[in-house]
Amino acid sequence: MTLTQDSPAAVAAMARALELAGRGPSGNPNPQVGCVILDANGETVAEGWHQGAGTPHAEVMAIANLAPEWRNHDNARQLTAVVTLEPCNHTGRTGPCAEAILSAGIGSVIYAVSDTGVASGGGAQRLMDAGVTVSGGLLANEVSHFIGPWLTFARTGRPHVILKWASSLDGRAAANDGTSQWITGPEARADVHVRRSAVDAIVVGTGTALADNPSLTARYPDGTLMLKQPIPVVVGKRSIPADAALHAHPQSPIIFHGTNLDLLLHELGDRGIRTVLVEGGPTLASAFIRAGLVDEVHAYLAPVLLGGSRLALDELGVATIDQAIRLTPFSTTVLGNDVRIIAHPIIAHPAALHHDSTLSPATATKEEN
Amino acid sequence: MTLTQDSPAAVAAMARALELAGRGPSGNPNPQVGCVILDANGETVAEGWHQGAGTPHAEVMAIANLAPEWRNHDNARQLTAVVTLEPCNHTGRTGPCAEAILSAGIGSVIYAVSDTGVASGGGAQRLMDAGVTVSGGLLANEVSHFIGPWLTFARTGRPHVILKWASSLDGRAAANDGTSQWITGPEARADVHVRRSAVDAIVVGTGTALADNPSLTARYPDGTLMLKQPIPVVVGKRSIPADAALHAHPQSPIIFHGTNLDLLLHELGDRGIRTVLVEGGPTLASAFIRAGLVDEVHAYLAPVLLGGSRLALDELGVATIDQAIRLTPFSTTVLGNDVRIIAHPIIAHPAALHHDSTLSPATATKEEN
Ligand SMILES: NC(=O)c1ccc[n+]([C@@H]2O[C@H](COP(=O)([O-])OP(=O)(O)OC[C@H]3O[C@@H](n4cnc5c(N)ncnc54)[C@H](OP(=O)(O)O)[C@@H]3O)[C@@H](O)[C@H]2O)c1
Ligand SMILES: NC(=O)c1ccc[n+]([C@@H]2O[C@H](COP(=O)([O-])OP(=O)(O)OC[C@H]3O[C@@H](n4cnc5c(N)ncnc54)[C@H](OP(=O)(O)O)[C@@H]3O)[C@@H](O)[C@H]2O)c1
Repeated sequence: MTLTQDSPAAVAAMARALELAGRGPSGNPNPQVGCVILDANGETVAEGWHQGAGTPHAEVMAIANLAPEWRNHDNARQLTAVVTLEPCNHTGRTGPCAEAILSAGIGSVIYAVSDTGVASGGGAQRLMDAGVTVSGGLLANEVSHFIGPWLTFARTGRPHVILKWASSLDGRAAANDGTSQWITGPEARADVHVRRSAVDAIVVGTGTALADNPSLTARYPDGTLMLKQPIPVVVGKRSIPADAALHAHPQSPIIFHGTNLDLLLHELGDRGIRTVLVEGGPTLASAFIRAGLVDEVHAYLAPVLLGGSRLALDELGVATIDQAIRLTPFSTTVLGNDVRIIAHPIIAHPAALHHDSTLSPATATKEEN
Repeated sequence: MTLTQDSPAAVAAMARALELAGRGPSGNPNPQVGCVILDANGETVAEGWHQGAGTPHAEVMAIANLAPEWRNHDNARQLTAVVTLEPCNHTGRTGPCAEAILSAGIGSVIYAVSDTGVASGGGAQRLMDAGVTVSGGLLANEVSHFIGPWLTFARTGRPHVILKWASSLDGRAAANDGTSQWITGPEARADVHVRRSAVDAIVVGTGTALADNPSLTARYPDGTLMLKQPIPVVVGKRSIPADAALHAHPQSPIIFHGTNLDLLLHELGDRGIRTVLVEGGPTLASAFIRAGLVDEVHAYLAPVLLGGSRLALDELGVATIDQAIRLTPFSTTVLGNDVRIIAHPIIAHPAALHHDSTLSPATATKEEN
């Protein structure tokens, strides 16, 4: 009997594999991956996770942890390897995982997310060709989010871009006179600082840098600096005064004199930056969306109405509803009085033809109002 | 020993009282009220609810349900009456509840929401003057929401106004060319139809009536009509064609030729309408907010980005952040891919000086970005 993707045991094993993945180091060139091996009854018989570049991959570690009774092909055939990422197909510093699974004789594999790497991808096909039962996509949303930066780099070769904005319930980032302190409450603001500390760089446009003179540090609510600080980045042709607050940032700021965002991201990538938080303003945020360069949206919505002209996003080049930029919702979280919505773009904007995420056509049923 | 508001027993009793309140008929001139009487250990000794005009109030029914052992002032002194609405102080078809509590000798009262009625209010003061321990505000948010239409009428003499809009995450109600079918998904749209069926009237502006020719009926997902239908109302100086879809509505439409929303609401009130759902468009929605005539906001937000000029709300007269129209969040509910946020205005807009809800000043802490 083969376990199917939708069996409770498989779902629980994938959730556990994701937890195990989190034990490995983040931010290294390899993704965090976890693996759970189940017997035909759905009982766990071994676990593994990737512990960093140069060490065995998750599947290899789990296979090494199998008890002797499973070390023959007759018994191993009833096993299912549940793994967060499609088993790799290339020989890096360790052998390909697809081969390790084949030589262990494991009969089926359930994975969450496909490996889109040119060198590493194709493991599922290799396994199927050799007679292994393979299925993908279980908890794909959760796992994709978890290893988002790695997936983005594998797909595009550039850093992972999180676009954050804070707005009123009606989509305004400020009142008509430009005042915006504060739209969201302390819980939401604290959450943004935690996020800042988790990324490699924060990006703002010259408009925000000149208008707000932000320090772009990650701080605790009492104002003290967090240990890990993102590199502050300012983008645009205008110059920033020598006495701007961000020059006092613990990390030297990067001033990018230009507006080519593709170039910006590749330059940041060349400096080892893998995750970027774009914190605005509206002009830069909209430019990132129009360019198809946003991988995650973090919208903080406050129970406030402002009306008026100061929008969190301005023109996105969507002429008609069929061109709407559809997102896959990932989470909706209440933070004090505010709500944080995290979502991932799924439909490529016309301007972003190289954006290759899953296409989910808008339901086109015509109904009356 | 007196039970305090924050004791788990009091909180649980108030939740139960709210549940009991729901057993009474809604939509009659009296509010739905529930009452639970607790002993000194927080054990329930009696329950009651209001069963409609002319029948005993919730407190009176609960007192009538007390066992004989509690029918003397020495024992009754240790009892706490937990009631969703401040005990009334007037003699209607039944005697005032404050007097009933005093003559039963009950030692303390915890209520959720104040009775702001001119004739009925003042019960808490009457009880305190007579030596009863009284506190208010427990689960006030939940109870206010539940009896919102009654509270609105008691405070203002007009119907209760729910403003609903559906928008993208960035606050747009349509793409630049005006197309908007569909921004939200089927779950959110089904929820709106359930809401339509629960109100007495749906209001739209002539702009929406002329642009969309909506039928304004409450329908099941398969398109069949729900049993209870709201009266369709169109507001504005322009005329609606004789063959407009809403003329086929099971309820005769009300065409209000004018733009005075205060007058509109009083005319609707005179026809027995107690609850009104304002479904747009942006011009009318913004006018209702500017006039301070919105009691509940229901925003349906879809994980979609549109950008552009078609905003769900336009100008609200908020010049600077201190004039922001702050709302108390009531609930955040995931409906399919969408999120519904229900909130209540708390700060009176400058234009709405007679709006007398609790004032919760925006936190004014100045912090750097
Ligand atoms: N509520 C929030 O979440 C939030 C967040 C941040 C800012 N804000 C507010 O937003 C306001 C500033 O708005 P803004 O829109 O002027 O700021 P912005 O988006 O930070 O800056 C706009 C500038 O970015 C530069 N830029 C770089 N690459 C670009 C590209 N590809 N396309 C277009 N522009 C590019 C341009 O500068 P050059 O002209 O120099 O080339 C442009 O003028 C401030 O008042 C601030 O308080 C609100
Ligand atoms: N996404 C959504 O939730 C949603 C909902 C509804 C509509 N819509 C879209 O909104 C568009 C229509 O927008 P709209 O703003 O023109 O429609 P609207 O708000 O329905 O109608 C505006 C008209 O309302 C009348 N009105 C009555 N009292 C008023 C007052 N106190 N202040 C101002 N106007 C008052 C005026 O009509 P007179 O000029 O005749 O006096 C005004 O021109 C349509 O394309 C529709 O599809 C979207």
